[in-house]
Amino acid sequence: MNYPSKILEKAVDEMASLPGIGRRTALRLVLHMLSRPASQTENLAESLENLVHEIKFCEKCHMISDENVCHICSNPHRDTSVICVVEDVRDVMAIENTGQYRGLFHVLGGRISPIDGIGPAQLNIESLSKRIKEEEISEVIFALSSTMEGDTTSFYLYKILRDSGVKLSVIARGIGVGDELEYADEATLVRSIQNRIPYAESTLKG
Amino acid sequence: MNYPSKILEKAVDEMASLPGIGRRTALRLVLHMLSRPASQTENLAESLENLVHEIKFCEKCHMISDENVCHICSNPHRDTSVICVVEDVRDVMAIENTGQYRGLFHVLGGRISPIDGIGPAQLNIESLSKRIKEEEISEVIFALSSTMEGDTTSFYLYKILRDSGVKLSVIARGIGVGDELEYADEATLVRSIQNRIPYAESTLKG
Repeated sequence: MNYPSKILEKAVDEMASLPGIGRRTALRLVLHMLSRPASQTENLAESLENLVHEIKFCEKCHMISDENVCHICSNPHRDTSVICVVEDVRDVMAIENTGQYRGLFHVLGGRISPIDGIGPAQLNIESLSKRIKEEEISEVIFALSSTMEGDTTSFYLYKILRDSGVKLSVIARGIGVGDELEYADEATLVRSIQNRIPYAESTLKG
Repeated sequence: MNYPSKILEKAVDEMASLPGIGRRTALRLVLHMLSRPASQTENLAESLENLVHEIKFCEKCHMISDENVCHICSNPHRDTSVICVVEDVRDVMAIENTGQYRGLFHVLGGRISPIDGIGPAQLNIESLSKRIKEEEISEVIFALSSTMEGDTTSFYLYKILRDSGVKLSVIARGIGVGDELEYADEATLVRSIQNRIPYAESTLKG
């Protein structure tokens, strides 16, 4: 595709560098920017500049934050004895959105995936070990993806932390709430039967 | 959804102001920007700033351009007696990409659509009339969408221009090249039969 303008082409190139945005979509977005007031696109550009320059990562849990310590780690009402280990920021947001979890988090920044060149050294694992040594932690919950990489990462963490004296747990795998059994995949169904719990507990927790 | 940072939230808001990008996608894109080198996002922001400030629209045909007159209007090898009227910049790019059309263009900037508050006055129609009066034009080709709005716009242009003495034509509607008849909609099939052409002509043109 030939572009009628270098400036247009450059903008399309840059937009198409984002994941899931092809050149066709990028062109549509860029033309939309030209059809709306310029100030709106100035705001967008400015917000992206701010994003990459101003945003901080919590020095304790690596969560995105406007401060050096995030609003979860600095909240005196949280249960500071429990750490929930997640892959990324979106997982923290999803769990926070439920409003049910009162402990702290630790954002690994991904999961072990040799094929993508991500080993333990690329993840925030050392800082997790450090926290467990230095803070008064009683339980660490692994809340990683139920994928091979997620499971590998959980197992790696388990090996590192099993002698630390803290309780290590993993979030339940099973049939999603509202899901029908007949549509569940086999592996999930097996796990849901293997990991069954006393009925009285389930209703208590529900 | 609660955001862990105002800066993050602002960036998500701005990205989600683009068409077809919801807040979930916007968050994914913004987090991607945080995981790649900051310079890449700086380039993106700069290219968008340049886009809205530096880009020009051709003063003859309203095409996007880096100059006051676009590279098509200023090309001495084009056939300046034919104007192809299109809705927007992408249509020009699509036709240019075929490499077969040697005439000029005129970008209307949309189509008549009362429901969206777009009447003839919002489109580049007056400048088209002016070009036809001032330039030596022998033919105007309507290449608008085959929709009710596109057809309305073509008809409006026809009414305005029919006494101008120039030949007015419209691009062929019919079965797309490579398409199978059985999947064509009824209206297209009817048009393709009504507007049939001598076989010898079709092979000549193909």
